[in-house]
Amino acid sequence: MIVVIGKHRSDLVEIAGDQLLFTEGWDGVPLDSVEAVIGRVPGELLARMPKLRWVHSPAAGVDADLSPEMLASDVVLTSSVGNGAIPLAEHSMLLMLMLNREVPRWLKAQAEHRWERFTHGELAGLTLGIYGLGHSGLDLARKAEAFHMRVIGVRRRVGEPSPYVEQVSFETLLDESDFVVVTAPRTPETAGRFGAAEFARMKASAYFVCISRGGIADDDALLDALRTGQIAGAGLDAHGVEPLPPESAFWDLPNVIVTPHNGATSTGTARRGEQIVRENLGRFLSGQELVNIVDKSAGY
Amino acid sequence: MIVVIGKHRSDLVEIAGDQLLFTEGWDGVPLDSVEAVIGRVPGELLARMPKLRWVHSPAAGVDADLSPEMLASDVVLTSSVGNGAIPLAEHSMLLMLMLNREVPRWLKAQAEHRWERFTHGELAGLTLGIYGLGHSGLDLARKAEAFHMRVIGVRRRVGEPSPYVEQVSFETLLDESDFVVVTAPRTPETAGRFGAAEFARMKASAYFVCISRGGIADDDALLDALRTGQIAGAGLDAHGVEPLPPESAFWDLPNVIVTPHNGATSTGTARRGEQIVRENLGRFLSGQELVNIVDKSAGY
Repeated sequence: MIVVIGKHRSDLVEIAGDQLLFTEGWDGVPLDSVEAVIGRVPGELLARMPKLRWVHSPAAGVDADLSPEMLASDVVLTSSVGNGAIPLAEHSMLLMLMLNREVPRWLKAQAEHRWERFTHGELAGLTLGIYGLGHSGLDLARKAEAFHMRVIGVRRRVGEPSPYVEQVSFETLLDESDFVVVTAPRTPETAGRFGAAEFARMKASAYFVCISRGGIADDDALLDALRTGQIAGAGLDAHGVEPLPPESAFWDLPNVIVTPHNGATSTGTARRGEQIVRENLGRFLSGQELVNIVDKSAGY
Repeated sequence: MIVVIGKHRSDLVEIAGDQLLFTEGWDGVPLDSVEAVIGRVPGELLARMPKLRWVHSPAAGVDADLSPEMLASDVVLTSSVGNGAIPLAEHSMLLMLMLNREVPRWLKAQAEHRWERFTHGELAGLTLGIYGLGHSGLDLARKAEAFHMRVIGVRRRVGEPSPYVEQVSFETLLDESDFVVVTAPRTPETAGRFGAAEFARMKASAYFVCISRGGIADDDALLDALRTGQIAGAGLDAHGVEPLPPESAFWDLPNVIVTPHNGATSTGTARRGEQIVRENLGRFLSGQELVNIVDKSAGY
């Protein structure tokens, strides 16, 4: 039996027929018979599904799927990584343009019917530093190259070729970037990677953008850097605590643009995610190797 | 004598020394001796400068420089075309992203500390139609290609190669574009080119963006198309009347983003404009052919 968490999908029925059980929750699911799950599995249930061989996460980043039980088990975990890469790269460019051009100032003037011209920056000629050169990071690099930016980046797997990007050390990324954009997954290695020392090292004119996961930046250190002018501003789609609480100081900082972890919430992302599930479901049934297998030790 | 309208520039003095007269206005300028003007020349003064051979406009679009007297004269007119191409292409991408993602909705939610997620579009896969494939149009095409858009366009000089762009008829541009972006100069040929019939022909889901000059769209027809849902929205940096009057209906339309002819107002644009002046001043003094010579009959 293959459990699908969520609504009925006829495209999956076409592939796997009555082997599928669609459900919104776990009540009444015969755990003994479950061989695969498309959806998130609470860690405590893993030990109760002896036949389980495969779990597919609807998320691109699997930090919330990697329970201690999942880390310890032999179950293959696949992800939807790549489904949101393009809209996340679009969102990164949007946030960079908005910060570079002080867009909120124009929208305020529009609301007040004021013709307020001012001199702003341009992205051309600036240096973009990308932290994490996966699907979204590489697509972002391609876009930034077309914006005539210098593109530098760091990735865990040093030496893997990255078109449009000059791979540099983490220190060089901090020293030379006019925009640091975090596209990395949250893993034990990346969590808290941007703290007080890192923000202090960045240029005072630089912006910090995060479109992947909160917690890679230390939010207290980031707030401090923004308030004291150690960096010029931030564009934040991913946050340490989500939803961002109403009392969070991030909302009101004049040099911060907050979006609600919404950068990839497009119909295209949903469509590509569904395609990955179909692909893997077919492969699972025919015994082929799955795509998007998570390296549990790396965390993505 | 070479008249420079504007502030003293030591970089020009280095090239032309005491042949230069810097002035903010025309009072007291010995018109009889003027051989060249860097700045705008009122049409009625042209006949009073018998030695005038060259006028350089500080603008990229010279519609305001082409007085009837200038059109009729043999004086060579050069422009600053190209100086703002890159920031205008950046502004076009910004407006497209903002319209595609309903950015004002996020900024409003941020101001109210609300975590409001919604499904938005992505530019990838959409068709961009560029009206005018000059410096900014071609740079925009390159950017849109990196955004995985289909790029079509029309230009006056049919057949001139345009990388990243499929050249189509004006009708095809209207029929197939999800975004129409106007980057053309205002000329007798382009003025009023987008009227009621053209907006009616566009997709109801399409957006109209103008970053070059007002008056290429008929503003009344555009307002009507926006109010009746013939098109989905607009991003307007250039306007038929500038400054846009406080009573203009464009300010308050929910599906319109207004910026104050400000897309290219960057330090980079100023720097590139100064470089063009230096280049042409040196060429003028040494008798070489000037760059950026305006085709007066074409209007740019």
